[in-house]
Amino acid sequence: MAEHEAFPMNGGSGLYSYTRNSTFQRKDTEAARELINKGIAEKLYLNNISSSSNTFRLADLGCSVGPNTFLAVENIVDSVEDKYKSQGLNHHLPEFQVFFNDHISNDFNQLFSSLPPERRYYATGVPGSFHGRLFPSSSLHFVYSSHAVHWLSRVPKEVLDKNSPAWNKGRIHYSNSPIEVVKSYEAQYVKDMERFLNARAQEIVHGGLMALLVPACPNETPHSELFFNKITELLGSCFMELAKKGMISEEKVDSFNVPLYNATFQQAEAIVDQNGYFSIEIMESLTKENPPSRLHSSGLRAGLEDLIKQHFGDEIDFDKLFDLYCKKFEEIFSTNQPNKPVVLFLLLKRK
Amino acid sequence: MAEHEAFPMNGGSGLYSYTRNSTFQRKDTEAARELINKGIAEKLYLNNISSSSNTFRLADLGCSVGPNTFLAVENIVDSVEDKYKSQGLNHHLPEFQVFFNDHISNDFNQLFSSLPPERRYYATGVPGSFHGRLFPSSSLHFVYSSHAVHWLSRVPKEVLDKNSPAWNKGRIHYSNSPIEVVKSYEAQYVKDMERFLNARAQEIVHGGLMALLVPACPNETPHSELFFNKITELLGSCFMELAKKGMISEEKVDSFNVPLYNATFQQAEAIVDQNGYFSIEIMESLTKENPPSRLHSSGLRAGLEDLIKQHFGDEIDFDKLFDLYCKKFEEIFSTNQPNKPVVLFLLLKRK
Repeated sequence: MAEHEAFPMNGGSGLYSYTRNSTFQRKDTEAARELINKGIAEKLYLNNISSSSNTFRLADLGCSVGPNTFLAVENIVDSVEDKYKSQGLNHHLPEFQVFFNDHISNDFNQLFSSLPPERRYYATGVPGSFHGRLFPSSSLHFVYSSHAVHWLSRVPKEVLDKNSPAWNKGRIHYSNSPIEVVKSYEAQYVKDMERFLNARAQEIVHGGLMALLVPACPNETPHSELFFNKITELLGSCFMELAKKGMISEEKVDSFNVPLYNATFQQAEAIVDQNGYFSIEIMESLTKENPPSRLHSSGLRAGLEDLIKQHFGDEIDFDKLFDLYCKKFEEIFSTNQPNKPVVLFLLLKRK
Repeated sequence: MAEHEAFPMNGGSGLYSYTRNSTFQRKDTEAARELINKGIAEKLYLNNISSSSNTFRLADLGCSVGPNTFLAVENIVDSVEDKYKSQGLNHHLPEFQVFFNDHISNDFNQLFSSLPPERRYYATGVPGSFHGRLFPSSSLHFVYSSHAVHWLSRVPKEVLDKNSPAWNKGRIHYSNSPIEVVKSYEAQYVKDMERFLNARAQEIVHGGLMALLVPACPNETPHSELFFNKITELLGSCFMELAKKGMISEEKVDSFNVPLYNATFQQAEAIVDQNGYFSIEIMESLTKENPPSRLHSSGLRAGLEDLIKQHFGDEIDFDKLFDLYCKKFEEIFSTNQPNKPVVLFLLLKRK
């Protein structure tokens, strides 16, 4: 198993492409807009930029194929320009260089072909895992990452080990599993975030900012009650149903785990504090409405299809799987509304 | 017609992909190796790099999909490190950031998936035409471009105009055409190179270097005798033969022109002098052996298939076209050896 596993969103521009199924994530981009504007207006110090050259370098880590990344980037460019203007630097606006990052297997051809023609920045693509280094030292002024850092670099190996108390038989996620499984996921997340923060600490200039948007778990909510966990569990029950009907092997379901971890607010805060390279400037939770089932189901498919295909191969019938999921989602949540999805917004500053 | 037309090399890794059909170009990469080493050793001034940050930024413009670009880049990285070491800066080696550039429609997915895993640089992809700006001001220390700047940004419009004396009926290139056609190609080349040099003058730091490898025409050789022109003319005769057999329309052949111009050494030198932003530090011609016909034919196909397809659509039978080409090439050149291909190496320094 590779050190970094790659599960890109669906490429291209077809029916279940991420391009056409990322409305859910876009709403967060819009919600975060104001917080980013505020963060840049109040927390960004311009002398860290103009001291070396007049280029403002920003990166979107885990950008997928658009269009959300273009909205996010445009907003950051606008905010930085506003900040310059507010300081009377209208004639000294920087040039912007934007680095769009995702896994090597991300569909960069699709990303590049949909770049806004009228953009005010120099665009580049950076292939590779953000759990390691991607940029030269002190070369970035702003890093943005949305719906990405909750992806683990790999499935924790204990949950795949039949001889471990953390073996996650019959489930595809941790939220309703024995405590050993939860602990394995958590440990992997802590390790991954540590590597993520260490790499960024090298790459971001002192005083530079990093905005993270990530699905998360309010401190008072049990893992099993979290919206994102409930839907992953529901998807797991669909896999089990297909296995019981003999359409996929139960053993394959046992060895399938979704490498996503939704940290509690407290955990996220503790990891940043423990790491020590960044201060938390803004920390807010964005509560969202539950999406309509059909839209939500297509979005989930765009995000997980590649991961599922890598594990189950071509034997699995995606239409059947997600039709079943959609039906169950409507049945269960029409009468029994789950907690609303919660996304954590963090603005960090490189000390 | 778009301002910048894009004719990328064949993507993917199939039979006629550029990846598998770029041996001809690779030999130049190897031949240029020593000249680049020498240029960096003697002409590169390190204080232009370390004054701002310790990142050495280099770009390959028109890099296609590899593997040649990786060899070229590795050589430049080696040479720069050697230069640092020769000055006793072993413990102050820079970090390298490499920008791989080609048209938006280039197969960047193929490029990224074949990046050498053990590379000593941060890799990025930059989509867009090198006839315009691609990078922030003063952000590059070394620019490399091989077998790329002889591509025009577009077919000169006069050669497509039935009412112009430069209308290029029945031919696909300029070398055996009326002088008006040659002049149109030349004028487009001068204009394109001017834009190319102006853009690079903004992007390259003072003292930074640019190495250009480009098929070219020795001053004493008539256009019609140049190897590259002879083979394009030969390809043109194959198109006419297919048209005479009714397999493609003659009108389509009349309106098809290959947007490549092989400048004379004198022209290349004059354009750089006229532009004024760069000094010529090294100017050498690399003479090559004629490639074997089959290898050569596949190479030509990898380079031109996309261009031909854009014009003729799916009606054209590529196997038939290039089989015919290969047969003619063997017939004509077995008894009557053409001049050897000549590639011009230029090392320019930003004043």
